[in-house]
Order: sequence, then structure tokens, then C-alpha cells
Amino acid sequence: MDFAIPPDIAELQARTRRFIRERIVPLENDPRQGHHGPTDEFRRELNALAAAEGLLAPHVSAEYGGLGLSHFGKAVVFEEAGYSLLGGLAMNIAAPDEGNMHLMEAVGAPEHKERWLRPLAAGLIRSCFCMTEPPPGAGSDPAALSTTARRDGNHWIINGTKWFTTGAEGAGFAIIMAKDEDGNATMFLSDMDAPGIEVVRALDTLDQGFPGGHCVVRFNDLRVPASDILGEPGKGFRYAQVRLAPARLTHCMRWLGAARRAHEVASAYAQTREVFGQKLGHHEGVGFMLADNEVDIRMSRLSIWHTAWVLDQGERGGTESSMSKLFCSEAIWRVVDRCVQVLGGQGITGETVVERIFREVRGFRIYDGPSEVHRWSIAQRIMRNGPNW
Amino acid sequence: MDFAIPPDIAELQARTRRFIRERIVPLENDPRQGHHGPTDEFRRELNALAAAEGLLAPHVSAEYGGLGLSHFGKAVVFEEAGYSLLGGLAMNIAAPDEGNMHLMEAVGAPEHKERWLRPLAAGLIRSCFCMTEPPPGAGSDPAALSTTARRDGNHWIINGTKWFTTGAEGAGFAIIMAKDEDGNATMFLSDMDAPGIEVVRALDTLDQGFPGGHCVVRFNDLRVPASDILGEPGKGFRYAQVRLAPARLTHCMRWLGAARRAHEVASAYAQTREVFGQKLGHHEGVGFMLADNEVDIRMSRLSIWHTAWVLDQGERGGTESSMSKLFCSEAIWRVVDRCVQVLGGQGITGETVVERIFREVRGFRIYDGPSEVHRWSIAQRIMRNGPNW
Amino acid sequence: MDFAIPPDIAELQARTRRFIRERIVPLENDPRQGHHGPTDEFRRELNALAAAEGLLAPHVSAEYGGLGLSHFGKAVVFEEAGYSLLGGLAMNIAAPDEGNMHLMEAVGAPEHKERWLRPLAAGLIRSCFCMTEPPPGAGSDPAALSTTARRDGNHWIINGTKWFTTGAEGAGFAIIMAKDEDGNATMFLSDMDAPGIEVVRALDTLDQGFPGGHCVVRFNDLRVPASDILGEPGKGFRYAQVRLAPARLTHCMRWLGAARRAHEVASAYAQTREVFGQKLGHHEGVGFMLADNEVDIRMSRLSIWHTAWVLDQGERGGTESSMSKLFCSEAIWRVVDRCVQVLGGQGITGETVVERIFREVRGFRIYDGPSEVHRWSIAQRIMRNGPNW
Amino acid sequence: MDFAIPPDIAELQARTRRFIRERIVPLENDPRQGHHGPTDEFRRELNALAAAEGLLAPHVSAEYGGLGLSHFGKAVVFEEAGYSLLGGLAMNIAAPDEGNMHLMEAVGAPEHKERWLRPLAAGLIRSCFCMTEPPPGAGSDPAALSTTARRDGNHWIINGTKWFTTGAEGAGFAIIMAKDEDGNATMFLSDMDAPGIEVVRALDTLDQGFPGGHCVVRFNDLRVPASDILGEPGKGFRYAQVRLAPARLTHCMRWLGAARRAHEVASAYAQTREVFGQKLGHHEGVGFMLADNEVDIRMSRLSIWHTAWVLDQGERGGTESSMSKLFCSEAIWRVVDRCVQVLGGQGITGETVVERIFREVRGFRIYDGPSEVHRWSIAQRIMRNGPNW
Repeated sequence: MDFAIPPDIAELQARTRRFIRERIVPLENDPRQGHHGPTDEFRRELNALAAAEGLLAPHVSAEYGGLGLSHFGKAVVFEEAGYSLLGGLAMNIAAPDEGNMHLMEAVGAPEHKERWLRPLAAGLIRSCFCMTEPPPGAGSDPAALSTTARRDGNHWIINGTKWFTTGAEGAGFAIIMAKDEDGNATMFLSDMDAPGIEVVRALDTLDQGFPGGHCVVRFNDLRVPASDILGEPGKGFRYAQVRLAPARLTHCMRWLGAARRAHEVASAYAQTREVFGQKLGHHEGVGFMLADNEVDIRMSRLSIWHTAWVLDQGERGGTESSMSKLFCSEAIWRVVDRCVQVLGGQGITGETVVERIFREVRGFRIYDGPSEVHRWSIAQRIMRNGPNW
Repeated sequence: MDFAIPPDIAELQARTRRFIRERIVPLENDPRQGHHGPTDEFRRELNALAAAEGLLAPHVSAEYGGLGLSHFGKAVVFEEAGYSLLGGLAMNIAAPDEGNMHLMEAVGAPEHKERWLRPLAAGLIRSCFCMTEPPPGAGSDPAALSTTARRDGNHWIINGTKWFTTGAEGAGFAIIMAKDEDGNATMFLSDMDAPGIEVVRALDTLDQGFPGGHCVVRFNDLRVPASDILGEPGKGFRYAQVRLAPARLTHCMRWLGAARRAHEVASAYAQTREVFGQKLGHHEGVGFMLADNEVDIRMSRLSIWHTAWVLDQGERGGTESSMSKLFCSEAIWRVVDRCVQVLGGQGITGETVVERIFREVRGFRIYDGPSEVHRWSIAQRIMRNGPNW
Repeated sequence: MDFAIPPDIAELQARTRRFIRERIVPLENDPRQGHHGPTDEFRRELNALAAAEGLLAPHVSAEYGGLGLSHFGKAVVFEEAGYSLLGGLAMNIAAPDEGNMHLMEAVGAPEHKERWLRPLAAGLIRSCFCMTEPPPGAGSDPAALSTTARRDGNHWIINGTKWFTTGAEGAGFAIIMAKDEDGNATMFLSDMDAPGIEVVRALDTLDQGFPGGHCVVRFNDLRVPASDILGEPGKGFRYAQVRLAPARLTHCMRWLGAARRAHEVASAYAQTREVFGQKLGHHEGVGFMLADNEVDIRMSRLSIWHTAWVLDQGERGGTESSMSKLFCSEAIWRVVDRCVQVLGGQGITGETVVERIFREVRGFRIYDGPSEVHRWSIAQRIMRNGPNW
Repeated sequence: MDFAIPPDIAELQARTRRFIRERIVPLENDPRQGHHGPTDEFRRELNALAAAEGLLAPHVSAEYGGLGLSHFGKAVVFEEAGYSLLGGLAMNIAAPDEGNMHLMEAVGAPEHKERWLRPLAAGLIRSCFCMTEPPPGAGSDPAALSTTARRDGNHWIINGTKWFTTGAEGAGFAIIMAKDEDGNATMFLSDMDAPGIEVVRALDTLDQGFPGGHCVVRFNDLRVPASDILGEPGKGFRYAQVRLAPARLTHCMRWLGAARRAHEVASAYAQTREVFGQKLGHHEGVGFMLADNEVDIRMSRLSIWHTAWVLDQGERGGTESSMSKLFCSEAIWRVVDRCVQVLGGQGITGETVVERIFREVRGFRIYDGPSEVHRWSIAQRIMRNGPNW
């Protein structure tokens, strides 16, 4: 039992922290950002800065240009990256690319890795993960998958509609989940410029940090060679789990960094702003909010570290990652909401970065399993096996 | 003791409800809306629709074209108006104009009413209320007022900076709070095109429904004739109270309507969307959120009605309006946040109006006194006088 | 729309308030109280005091010695009574007798009223309501009723076990819910000393204010003459509803009084106790708790008044009484829990009455429908009919 | 970074778990328990059982008969002990003795250890810690200390009143905090049968698990030899800190075990009780409560482990122990309160152990610093030093 960060990770943590504060934060107001994130040009510039510091895609293996971080290593480094809303993107550890890299490393064939993972890790292309569907399709309930894959000789023909496909606009390739006639789910790989893929539109969303936005994607008789199945056919749901638990956790890591940022801004304001004859933070009504923030931040980190450690032991960590997702998404939301409140009127303006964080982070209580679905799944385990220690 | 709505108000309620649903809701996606609300042209069209139904500015007295609604009458009608984010604007009962009309009717001189109230009530011009200042000026603590008014013969010279001046851009006139050399606060009236008024910029805000936005306004030696003091000199703080308690309550009324709208959207989704083998709302995790919504909505309405009744008895209603503001702003926020959650991914998109309501309503926990200030002021009363029944 | 208390009720309110404070509160530490409430002797003395003030059983009709209060009248008067944990008992408006009187007045035959209601209203006897059963019998789900009634000529033979039968020990008569062979539920009346009724034991409970405690009662071939069916056979579930909605609401009324009492004690402490250089209540962390108490108390009262008014209009008020039960039980619990916290160490001792209130009121979130069951039933209505305004 | 429990601690954990379940739980209903805990005879029998398993006072050093557990070791073992409300007592790791042993080992003179620590560790005597005073004395604010110590030759004369002195009735000796004429606080040791110590009464409290109860103790010219100062004179406040941070944390450990117990009982009920056509726990309204319990339990444990590790590094851990106390006391309370709710009516009865746990644990949000004081102290640190990572 040891909470100490080993020296190599501590060094990386310090380096990342410095990089984010000195190189990335100053670029946060770069005008090359819109409703759906930074432009590709700006993103590549950010990647170049990270690469120069040896901080590009640190989660992938050395073979693909990274540092092969353990889950715990990611916990420490990604939190630092999340301190800036541009940090994850700069370091190429943002969703959905980060999860896609993880999945491809885990189950991809060598030629697929060469063709898609390598340029993805290098920041040369982006990717998307086509899973969620509009009602009545697959959402919280993956079994409702309605996109179909029909065998046609050496190819598969894919039809269906996805939405909330983050980053589809501008992505180089997609991982596509579809069901064959026997009801087995398979993941397919395809370049995005293949005929039969139509990015219908980007949804108009509260958040705006994801390049390409969250899109509606339609597959109209998309032909995928059978050789471009990711991993093995019929293992779609299993692979979704391989991707999901860690992806969920990396969200927690990055958003924890954002929560820390918001809390820093709010604390600084409370330390200096004077109202009713004393510093704002000396009013207990405000000071208590800051105190609760520190507890929520600390507890979120402990939860992430614990689940990362479980994953690093080679376990599936389903319960742990559910708990971390549930706890962190709710706790981080509380933190950011309190920061808005501490800042008063300014909290809902662009005068500080808190308003942006507020908008970006609301969705986190919903995607990768709404809090309600995680509660349900934890409860199911109790009903089957009793309390889980 | 009677909770029945009298027939005349009930008729007005039904008429407003129909008007909003049939005439205003269909216009919600009119493209003539931006980050700072509808264009003036669009606003005037909306006003014309309301006028045609006899629903324009129903809160002002008949003398100025309205229906002279009691506070309770407003409670019923404004809630209906708030059902659409355009409703308050259409009926000319939106902040800050509604509060300004109330204040001018209460304390304005006949010539001021003729010059500014009449066209304001008719929707010919808009107005703004210049009170809040950037740190270290007047915010939650009005005593920190730093804008100055210096006597110069028959005029006053005003200098200072305001912010969160809603609607300043495009307003016809302003009510300006400033302090004279003796520390007395006075309200001044001025056309907005007077030399010495500079609308520096509109803040970039989470909400976007207020025409003109929330602005930074600078007074550079603005000259105001002594005859254009609103009411009597030195009564600025008192008048602020005259405006504040009812204005606070009308916010509650309108946002309650918005919460109802969000709840309707979420309920309809829960009634139809099927997940994990049953309708979404039959999952208790979701059904309970809807149930809590109904309770929060019902309780908010009861609180508003009660405070309105207290005001209608001629009382100041300071405690009651503080409680209503505190309870309603928090309860309405809970409702809207739950609606986002019930809608899942769609909750954070423009696919439904809920995301817009979510953005619009967050500020309500802050403006017109953050929840913390109301808690503080209620606590002060207890410390002075003991519990308050 | 009118929140004014009519003069006759206001007079009764003032009289009750004075009576409780001057005559009942001083008796709260009378030693004739144990784990299951006051002794019968003490109870009768309390009743005599109330009778002398004309405040005994004010809810029953004049015919049975009361004042025939409307639901609203009860709301006002019962809240005052609840200010002392002995108040309800003194005035003979405590559960379960109060609900039993209501039910018997509503559906009882003249001879039953004469035999049981009259002495009950006069405080000469107590009663109990045998409904809830141990698992797997009737609890939150009344349909699980397992006590049986078998016809035997002019009699019915009742068998089964009940628990949480409040006041069974020492009661004069019982209302017993049982199911016949066709599955119809019927209510039976029986003297408690009838052969075949066995009070097995009183449960050891957190609360201790109910005379006779919450008992396990066994029916071993209890013979009830067919003429002692309450109202009509087969209408048991309907009558349960007749009793339930108002009974639920009178719980809200009485516990609201108790919450006010706790809040008064906590406020007085906060006004006088000095810590860290200022009065306890001037610490916002404490002051805010007191403020939230006032809001919760105010809102609970408004909710009760509204539901009482709905019932007074002759409506069933199912939704309203569910909402009031849900809101009030949770709000009142928050109030009392905060009072414990404000009092610090003393909060969990018998130094003030707050600890007793804390223990008494916890069950209120459970009995007469746990909060979860009310949420569920409100949600069911939304799923059937959409939002309910 | 490692969350693994080392083998020796894991073995001890398993042994303790077995001991508690097999030997202690079956004794929970032993009648030799009253409002102020088990009788001394019963306590000694429990100690003998623990001693037979090598589990008596495992926190003290081998020199005094224990195992010299680290803070982390205590975290693991004490949680297991807390599973039974008798566990801490049986293993002689209950408050206040456990904290007193810790303090005496840390700062006591050899002869004091021999005279008082050795028999205390062996369970031959009990002890008490006389610190808290009735208003306006020392409570949350230790600086308000009003008990005085006046030098008289080779002795000190102590006068004053303490309360909430846990275990005073029946204790063998006391640690007494008093202030000299220069305002310096010193800790004194005294046998409880010394003339001048009067145990006035045991407070009537919601909890009832502490032998001797929480007492009012009066010092009437108590004479203490100067040689019986604990540690050095004038270091009272510093020693209070030495005792406090770890003592706070051991409370968290034991109550976490109790929370687990409550959660086990509630889960078992939810797994078997059937209502409305399905198992109780399959109702999401209940299942979600169980899920939230698991999260709160897990997070409490992580918080405890982290703080224990910090203390094991030799740091003071003021912030960490404040955070753990705040988080755990609130989280554990939520768990136990939910368990009561899940159990329905039974939750407030002695049918299960949950009601007892509910009563025992409420005080934990208050003693050793109410949640509000911990929030305040965390906020103070932010105001001084900014956010604390």
C-alpha cells in the first residue's frame, strides 16, 4: 500500500504541468476555434508543441511513438493535461482518438495498426467511433444496435445511422459497430472518404471543444472488405468493453484537471474579491464551497488512481470503473457548478475559463453511461452477488 | 384561504397559454436570433402578435396600455409566458424592461412616464438598468457603489463603469444608479444616445436570450439635467428595493414557465423512448426524477403565489421574496438539470429546447442576489428577531 | 386566491398556541412516559386539559364533541399542536386515533359510531388500525394483504399477523383489514379484548411517543359478527384510501409543528452561543442552515395548506397528498437534522427536545408510504397522463 | 503507487473478520448492555476473547502487548472490528481508550506508561479524556478552554467542568486539559478516584454504545502532583493535535465497518423481499440507494487509506485527516440513513442492527470537529495558501 508517485511518473507530471501552463494555456484564446473545436491547422500546431516536449500520445506504446504509460501513469499525466481545455488535444490524448488508439493497440491487426494507428498516434489524422444511434437504436442499451452488416462475398455492406459520433467531420477513419444477420456485433474499420459514408451534420451542442463536433453519420451501402474487420468478427460487444472501461476512466482524468483549473480560478477570486467588508472566501458560505471542492477533487483523484491500479493488475475493473465514472462525473460537476457560483455574475461569462468548462463538462454525466446506468449496473451486481468489498 | 384562480385571471391564463403555444412556440426557430437575443425587427413582430391578443405589457396600468395586473395576476400570466423563451419578450414582460416599467410607474414623474414609460410599454423602445459594477464596485453588496454623480449647476455629471447592464446595446434609455459626494445614491434617467454613454461591449455569456446582451457601459462625464432624476434625489437604494422584490419574483414566474416546458419535453421523451425493455420513464431512476420535477414545480408555484399575495397586501415582502428567489432558483435549476439528464445525449444538444433553457436559467441562481446572499439575509433576520413564521 | 387565515381559525390557532406553550410544554418531562409513550393516566390528564380549553378532538364533528374543522382548519391547528410532542396526544388528534375517527365518521354505521367513535373522540379509549403485515404481507404494496377472513354463518373468522400496529397494546378496539376468499378486502371492527386477538409484543423502535408502541398483533380465529364490518364489505382498499390521504396530511401538519419547535431551539442557541469570536449564527455555515430551515418550514406549510384546500373542495387529492407527504417528510427531516447539527454535541442529548424530535420523526419518511413509493406513484401518473399542473 | 494490502495485514484482516463474525456478532444481543454500553464484566469477557485470538489492542506497541500496527494497518483492521458495534470494545480499540493509548505512547513518561498505559492496553481499566466543556467553554473552539490549573508547590489545583467526557463513569484514570494562569494549556493525569473528581451524571444520549456514557465531570480543587503532567507542561494544545488527527481517523475506520454492516443487512433484505411483483432491490429506487452506498463505502475507505498513508509517512496530515473526517462522517451517515430507508418500517426497529447503528453514528458528524468546522479549516488553508493538491 503506497500512494507515492514513482519518480519517472512524477517527472512526467511536472513536465506536463509546466508544458500545459507555459505553452498551452497562453494559446487558449487563439481565434482558430469554433463551435466544434480548434481548426485542424491549430490542432497540428498544438501537437507539434507537445511532440517537441516528448509529450505526444504518451499512452501508446513506444512502437507507435508514445511512452507506453500504465493506467496509473495516464491518471497522473492526463489530469495535468486536462488543466487546459486544449491540453488533451495538444497531447493527442483526447476522446475519441485516445480510446480508439487504446482499442487498436489491444485488438488490431498489424496492418491495421500500420495503416491507421500510426498516423493517428502521430496526430496526422483523426478518427471516430461509430456506436451510438438515434432512438430507437443503441444508446445506454447497446443491445438495441440497429446498424446492419450484410455479407457480400469478400465484403460487408453496412447500412444504418449513428449519432453523437464525435469528430466524424474531418476524421480520417472510423470504427463502426454493426450487427450481422445472426445478431452478432462486429467492429469494422473504414476510411471516412469511402463511398457510402455520409456525415449528415454536426449536432448543435452545449460543449464545443471536440474537433468535428458530435455528428450524425449515415451508412448507405458502405462496402468494407472482410479484411478490415477490427480484430475478430462477432466480438463487437466484447471490444466495446475493452475500449469502454479505460476510456471512461481517461475522461475522469482529463475532466479532473479541468475541475482543478476551475477551482483555481474560483479560489483566486475568493482570495482577492472583497464583499461586505471581508474577502469573499472568508464568508463561510463561499469558503465552504471551496472546501467541498477540495474534497471532491481529492476523492475523485483517489477513485481514479484506485481504478487505474486495478486495471494495471490486469483485471477488467468493470465495477471500479463504473464507480469512478459515477463518482467523478457527479463530483466534478459539483465542483464546476460551485465555481460558477463563487464567481457570481462572471461565472456565466467568458471573462474566465470557468464558463467554458461548465459547458464542456455537463455532458460527462451522460456519455459513456449516464450516472443512472452506472447506478443500475452496480445495483445489479449487488442483487446477484451481494455487497462488493 | 383560497387557492382558486379568479375567473378573470383564469381566462387570461388560458388566453396566454393558447397564445404562447399557438403563436410564439412555432416562431422559436426563427433565424433572426443571435448570441444576444432576437433582432429588434423580430422583437417588434412578436410584440405586434401579443398586442393583437391584448397581451402586451399586461402588468402596466391601463393608462399605459396594460391590464394593471396584481402581483398574483402576474404570477399566473407570466408563468404561461415563460413557457417559451420568447414569451416574455413577445408580451413585453421580460427583464429588465418589466422591472423598469414597474419602477417608473411607482416613482416616476408624469413627464418621465410620458417620455419613457409610454413608448417602453408599447414596445417602441427598450431600456436598461445600470446598477451592477465590476469589482470592486457594487455587486451583491450594493453599498460598494462606485459610480459618481457630481452636481454642476442644473446638471449632474456622472462617471463610472457598469457591467451586466442587460440590454444596454440598442436600449432607448437608461436608469443609472450613482452616488453623490455625500454618499447618497440617486437614480438618473438618460437617453442612451446622450454623449458620455459608451457601451463598451456585450459580455460573452452562457445565456443568449436577452436582446442587447449583458453589457459593459462606461459613463464619461455624462451630463444629466437635474430634472431627470428618477423620483427624488438620494433615494436610490430605496427605489432599488422597490424594483427588486417584485423583479425578483417575476423572474421566478417566467423561469417557472420555462421549467414546465423542459419538464414537458422530458416527460414526453420518457413516455415514448424505450430502453432495456421498457419505457424510459418506467425505470424508477428516471421516473423519480420526473416526480421530483413535479414537486419542485408545484412548490415553486406555491411559493410565488404566496409572495405575490403578500405583495398584493401592500407589504414589502422582503423575507418572502428572498425565500421565493432562493427556493425557486434552486428548484427550477434542479428541474432543468434533471430534464437534461432524462434526455440523455440529446439533453446537451439543440435537438430540443431544453439545452437552451439550461443555458438561460443557470444565471438565475446568481442575479438578483445569489442564493448565498439570500440565505445570509434570511439568517440575519433570524439572528435579530428569531424564527419568522 | 387568498392566503389569509379566517378570523375563527386564527383565533383557534392563537388559542392552541397558547395552550400548548403554557399548559403542555411544561409537562413534557413528566416521568409518566416510557418507551411507548405516556401512561394512560397521564394521557387522560392531558386530554382533560385540552377539553377544558375546548380543544379536544377538534377535527370531529360537533355531534361527537369536536369543532368539525375543515382540512384547512386542521392544517392550522394541528401544526400548533405538534409544537409539543405531547400536543397531538393531549388534543386527541394523534395517529392512529385521529385517522380512525376520520374514517369512522366518513363510512361508519350509526351504531358503530355510538359504540366506538364517541368514546374514542372523548379520549375514553384508544384504537388501532391493523393493516401492515410482516413480509411477505402487505406493506408498501397493499395488494400483498395476507390476513384472511372466512365467512362462517353470521360471523367472519379472521386469521393472520399484523405488525406496526400502532397503539395496539391498550387499545379499546381495532379496525382490521382482511381479505376474503374472493380476494376482496374488507374492514372489520372488533373490541381488542375479543378472544382471538393476541398482542404479541411491541416492537423496539427509534421513536417512543406513541402510546402502546408499534405492535405485532396476531389473529387466531378471531370471530367478528357480520354486523361489525366497517361500512360495506369488499370496500377495504377504497376505505384505506379514504383514511390515507387525510391521515398522511395530518402527519405533515403535526410534524411541521415539531420541526418549528426544533428550529426555535436551534435558533435560540445560535443567537446566544459564542464561538470563534462571534455568535454561532453569525457564522454563515450555521446561519445558512437556519435559513434553509425557514425555507423548508415555509414551503412545507404552503404544501399542506394547498393540499388541505384541495381536499376541502371535495376532491380526492391523491397527487397533492402524495406530493405533500413526500415534500414535507423530507423537508422536515432536513430541518430537524440541521437543528441537531447546529446544537453540536448537545444535539444528540436529552439536554434539549431536539434529540427526541429527531428520533420521533425519522419514521415519517417511511410510514404512510415511503418517499420512494410516493415518487413512484407520481411518476406513474406522469407516464399515464403526462405532466400534471 | 500500490493499493495491495501486504500479506501480514491481509492475514490480520481475515483473522479479524472471522473473529468478529464468529465470536462477537453472536454476542450482540447479550443482555448485559444498557444505555451506556456493556457492563464491565461483559467488556472483560469480550477482551478475553480478543486476547485469545491475539487481537487485543493491536495498535499499541509490542512492549504494551499489541502488534504495533501502522496507521494503514489500523485502517484495515479497525474497519473489520467496526463491523460489530461490540468489535471495537472487544479488541480494546474503541474511543476514547484507543486515542488515549496512542497519546500516552507518543508523549508519556515511562512511569506513566507503566502505571496507566499497561493496564489500559490490557483492558484491566478504562480511561477518559477530559477536554470538551459546556458553553461558554471549549467545544469546537478549543481556545475557549475554561478549566483552570493553579500551581501550589509541587502540585497543581484543578477546577472546572467538562462534559461529553466519554467513559468517565467507571474509568480508572483521566487525561485532563486545563489552562494555567498564563493561558498555557497542559494535560494532567489523574486516577479517577482522586478526591476532587466528581462524575456529575451521564448525559442522556442518542447513542448508547460507549461504556460509561458521555459524562459531566466536575473538578473541585483536584490536586495533581506536578510529576503527573502528561509530557511537558504548556503543550496541551499540541498534544491535543497529536491525539486528534489519528483519533479522528480511527473513528472513520470503525464507523466504516458499521456502515458496511448496515449495507449488508439492507442488501440482504433487498435481495429477498418481494414488493410490487419483483425483488425490492430490482426497483431502481432501492437499487440506486444500494449502489450509492457502495460508492460511499468505497470512497470512504480510499480516503482513510490515503490519510493513513500520509500519517505513516510521518506527516501531520492535518488537511488529509480533516478531509477524511468530513467526507467519511457525511458519507457513512448517508449510507446508514439509506439502509434505514431500504428496510422500510423495520429500519426504525430493533429487528435488525441497523437502527442501533443509525443512533450510534449520528454523533460522528459532530464530535472530533463538526463537518462545518472541518469545512471552515479547509477553507482557511485555501485562503492562506491557495488550492491544495
